[in-house]
Amino acid sequence: MLTIGLDADDTLWHNESLYWLTQEKFRQLLAPYHSAEWIDQRLYETELRNLEHFGYGIKGFALSMIETAIDLTEGRVGAGEIGEILGYAKTMLQAPVDLLPGVEEVVQQLASDHQLMLITKGDLFDQESKVARSGLGDYFAKVEIVREKDPSAYRTILQRHGIAPQHFLMVGNSMRSDILPVLSLGGLAAYIPYHITWQHEAAAPPEPTTAGFFHLDAIDQLPALVQVLSGQVSQNPTP
Amino acid sequence: MLTIGLDADDTLWHNESLYWLTQEKFRQLLAPYHSAEWIDQRLYETELRNLEHFGYGIKGFALSMIETAIDLTEGRVGAGEIGEILGYAKTMLQAPVDLLPGVEEVVQQLASDHQLMLITKGDLFDQESKVARSGLGDYFAKVEIVREKDPSAYRTILQRHGIAPQHFLMVGNSMRSDILPVLSLGGLAAYIPYHITWQHEAAAPPEPTTAGFFHLDAIDQLPALVQVLSGQVSQNPTP
Repeated sequence: MLTIGLDADDTLWHNESLYWLTQEKFRQLLAPYHSAEWIDQRLYETELRNLEHFGYGIKGFALSMIETAIDLTEGRVGAGEIGEILGYAKTMLQAPVDLLPGVEEVVQQLASDHQLMLITKGDLFDQESKVARSGLGDYFAKVEIVREKDPSAYRTILQRHGIAPQHFLMVGNSMRSDILPVLSLGGLAAYIPYHITWQHEAAAPPEPTTAGFFHLDAIDQLPALVQVLSGQVSQNPTP
Repeated sequence: MLTIGLDADDTLWHNESLYWLTQEKFRQLLAPYHSAEWIDQRLYETELRNLEHFGYGIKGFALSMIETAIDLTEGRVGAGEIGEILGYAKTMLQAPVDLLPGVEEVVQQLASDHQLMLITKGDLFDQESKVARSGLGDYFAKVEIVREKDPSAYRTILQRHGIAPQHFLMVGNSMRSDILPVLSLGGLAAYIPYHITWQHEAAAPPEPTTAGFFHLDAIDQLPALVQVLSGQVSQNPTP
């Protein structure tokens, strides 16, 4: 049997677009001080520098925006503008969970024949809230929220559930977090790009001929791939 | 066999004292504007209001301090002061994990005969980092980081691991999060107070005669309690 791991943000529902819209508001806020390019670059640098302290998620993003606003204005930014940034964060945290096209049908269909796991990283509180609000929670046998989606995190998850890597298909939009680590363990990986990728998640794709790697245009192509892979897996069982 | 659940913050290591020290700095920062009592009260109100958006943890605390500073000064707080609050948050996130007296010996001793679980709430990223830095991680068969420590969260954990409530002892410093929910499920609970309790975690204790409730003065009294309870559990096995 094939176990299917699904990424959440930008695979099941829109997420990066919410950051993008917020960053656009942030650019407008600081437009009197700097160019959009310079604001983007400095914000990204601040986010990366803070990643080891804050981890992923909206609260860390908000703190990094505030820090960037102070730095970029050399302290001239006003409390009113900082207050606006706090407002952006609350808006993001309360934003409705907006499923990508076809997700509900595909998840429902796959769940009837396969064990589905939702595997996501980021802020526990925010991610659990989104899973609950998505209405998809019941289709997943397991929800795993991890600190970082690296080979060691996937290895731990597969071992805990007694899943052989060659019977595991990970589906997601991030080369860095969903695809490459799973391939490195000998698993299967289906890449479905989202129209915006956070710079930090970008990575060179594997060679198109890499065993176990599949590139789909949209999630509605997933059931057909799963059907083919399931046939191969059942012909080729591991002890 | 008895499974022992241990809370982390203020049960295994100092935590609330770190918030307290930070709040003292925050009071000093806003001392030109308001009295310490009023600052404390408004910060607490802001934290509670934000809890549903931010959850528990340092990042949410930092955002609430910033919001309170803006509100309390009616926007007169400067970017430099906001920058100081950001600095407080980073200092907290990097603070060494300071074990409470006796913790290392007790945890080591209990782990040799019992299954230990660390059960904590709050920010996944920060809590995992503290478990790793504490050096205690290997003594725990499981680490559970949950959104809220309520009866439903404990029920889920016990069911997942096939533990009967009457074979489960929870140990912690919060009546609200460690003691009352576990007693409500028919489990055992040992309360070990910490010298500071966040107002939000305070709750009336159960009657001293409540079955399964124990009040210890310090963690070094835990092994003796566990020994007594283990004897009772093994005389009284559940099917």
